[in-house]
Amino acid sequence: MNTYWNKYPELLSDLKEVKAIMKNTIGHPSAFIRDPIFQMIDSGGKMLRPAMLILSSKFGKYDPERVLPLAAAVELFHTATLIHDDIIDDSKIRRNTKTIQSQFGKDVAVYSGDYIIARSFMLIHEEYDQQMLRNLSKKIVQICTGELKQYTHKYDSNICVYDYIKIVAAKTAALFAMSMYTGARLGDLDEKTARLFGLAGLKIGIAYQIIDDCLDYCGTDDSILKSARNDLRQGFYTLPLICALKYDKDNTLKTLLDTTDFNDDDILKIYHLVIDKNGITKAKEYAMRYTQKAYAALERLPECNSRTILKDITHSLLERQY
Amino acid sequence: MNTYWNKYPELLSDLKEVKAIMKNTIGHPSAFIRDPIFQMIDSGGKMLRPAMLILSSKFGKYDPERVLPLAAAVELFHTATLIHDDIIDDSKIRRNTKTIQSQFGKDVAVYSGDYIIARSFMLIHEEYDQQMLRNLSKKIVQICTGELKQYTHKYDSNICVYDYIKIVAAKTAALFAMSMYTGARLGDLDEKTARLFGLAGLKIGIAYQIIDDCLDYCGTDDSILKSARNDLRQGFYTLPLICALKYDKDNTLKTLLDTTDFNDDDILKIYHLVIDKNGITKAKEYAMRYTQKAYAALERLPECNSRTILKDITHSLLERQY
Repeated sequence: MNTYWNKYPELLSDLKEVKAIMKNTIGHPSAFIRDPIFQMIDSGGKMLRPAMLILSSKFGKYDPERVLPLAAAVELFHTATLIHDDIIDDSKIRRNTKTIQSQFGKDVAVYSGDYIIARSFMLIHEEYDQQMLRNLSKKIVQICTGELKQYTHKYDSNICVYDYIKIVAAKTAALFAMSMYTGARLGDLDEKTARLFGLAGLKIGIAYQIIDDCLDYCGTDDSILKSARNDLRQGFYTLPLICALKYDKDNTLKTLLDTTDFNDDDILKIYHLVIDKNGITKAKEYAMRYTQKAYAALERLPECNSRTILKDITHSLLERQY
Repeated sequence: MNTYWNKYPELLSDLKEVKAIMKNTIGHPSAFIRDPIFQMIDSGGKMLRPAMLILSSKFGKYDPERVLPLAAAVELFHTATLIHDDIIDDSKIRRNTKTIQSQFGKDVAVYSGDYIIARSFMLIHEEYDQQMLRNLSKKIVQICTGELKQYTHKYDSNICVYDYIKIVAAKTAALFAMSMYTGARLGDLDEKTARLFGLAGLKIGIAYQIIDDCLDYCGTDDSILKSARNDLRQGFYTLPLICALKYDKDNTLKTLLDTTDFNDDDILKIYHLVIDKNGITKAKEYAMRYTQKAYAALERLPECNSRTILKDITHSLLERQY
């Protein structure tokens, strides 16, 4: 288990239980499948979404038997999306472990992801009502839509900040939002209050992704090449780049982007143009703004120990060095 | 709509409605996604599974409002598996149309499949109870398990007929079985009778796949190269090959297979060895046996017009020239 939760032993214990439920849900397919999936589950992910779900339910009447299976389903689903993402990015490493697609092939990765999605649906409707299932399906649709929306803006130097935020809200923040909203509902908090939790999750998720994208543009030339290369080569323009394009009066950045077939020198040129055109500075301003929105949303939640922990987590997520 | 159903105008009309529900269920993602998915839906697939579902329900009290959405969900799910299959096979053409993965990339294909699966789940739990959802999830798990089970037998010259039948039962026949069982239940037939339908679907599905695999080994050298190449190169040994291996006393076939890196000459050598070692003859015997089981299962169903049509369909599916 990731050491991230060591300061919250009760939560750590809950998350260990969530992990056990995840493995139990995967069941006993052949070792050929079970082993890579278990490897993924054990690879040290922070389990943020289950943690936020559990903490949100603790604002009300916390019932682990109700809450932990759903936390497991959400994390399983998140795992499936990561496995599918790695196919697309042709990623070799995730969480310091070789990805399923690079170890076993894109075929196994596609089916493992499908298998996990199906198993998490089975878990949910064994344990919960139709409404819960509906919510999860809606989130999956939202996430897919967000992922796919990126494609409509591939190599699009006219992409605006609004488009970017919409994509991030769907592909990243939606599952945070759902985790917190659902946790609150499972703690028997009323709909109106639960929506505040959902809103907090959404803001945290958006801020988190913006910061992640900013971090891709920070560091040494070597680290820039590692982090920014994939997105740029696939034509995905993230916030620092989008902000820089707003100040690209001489069109140098746009011209370079429109060549599309980047080598490493081009990527470094792009990086330096993004800095020169204040892309990172402006993107950081958005990061600050959404971080403040996230904190403000958390302030609207009832005061209790769980809120303190949520604020703590949000702080450590969003105050990463950049 | 595929002309396959022209002789059954009522069924044709139902299937047109199913297609409309499928498109409605896909909803309004960006045209970027909707267009390839619609293209797949319109590409002339026979819609066998919805047809079998509808026909099965007509043995009882047929209620199109109950039946047609589920038929749409099953066909949507089938469509998603085809899209994912095409990624794995790197297929360029399906139903005489360019595949999603070859037109738009493996990334779009992965997410389109995920999107469709999520949408079909949403459709099902909007319209049906938990049990129905449970059944569909179980089928998805079964299909993924079947697909993945193939991988445990990749390049395995010790694979036996039993392993092959288990794989086929899961990856192909399970959805036929579910379509017929569920159709029967939606027509308010009792559980015991519905299981007969499920059994018939299972037998039809297994026979169908065996015949498909036999057909891959029939024809000219050119057509063999086209059909057998993919499976062989990926190490998937189908029934004609498995049967031939049982008679491979001099190990010539096994030795050739164990080289694994086949060029076209090797594939033709394998094909001719399979013929010489009676692989196709023996596989055809299995095909006949399962075809008879399929007809016998259909005979156990109550006599009515729908049974006549089902027998007709089964006949045309299983009496393909080989």
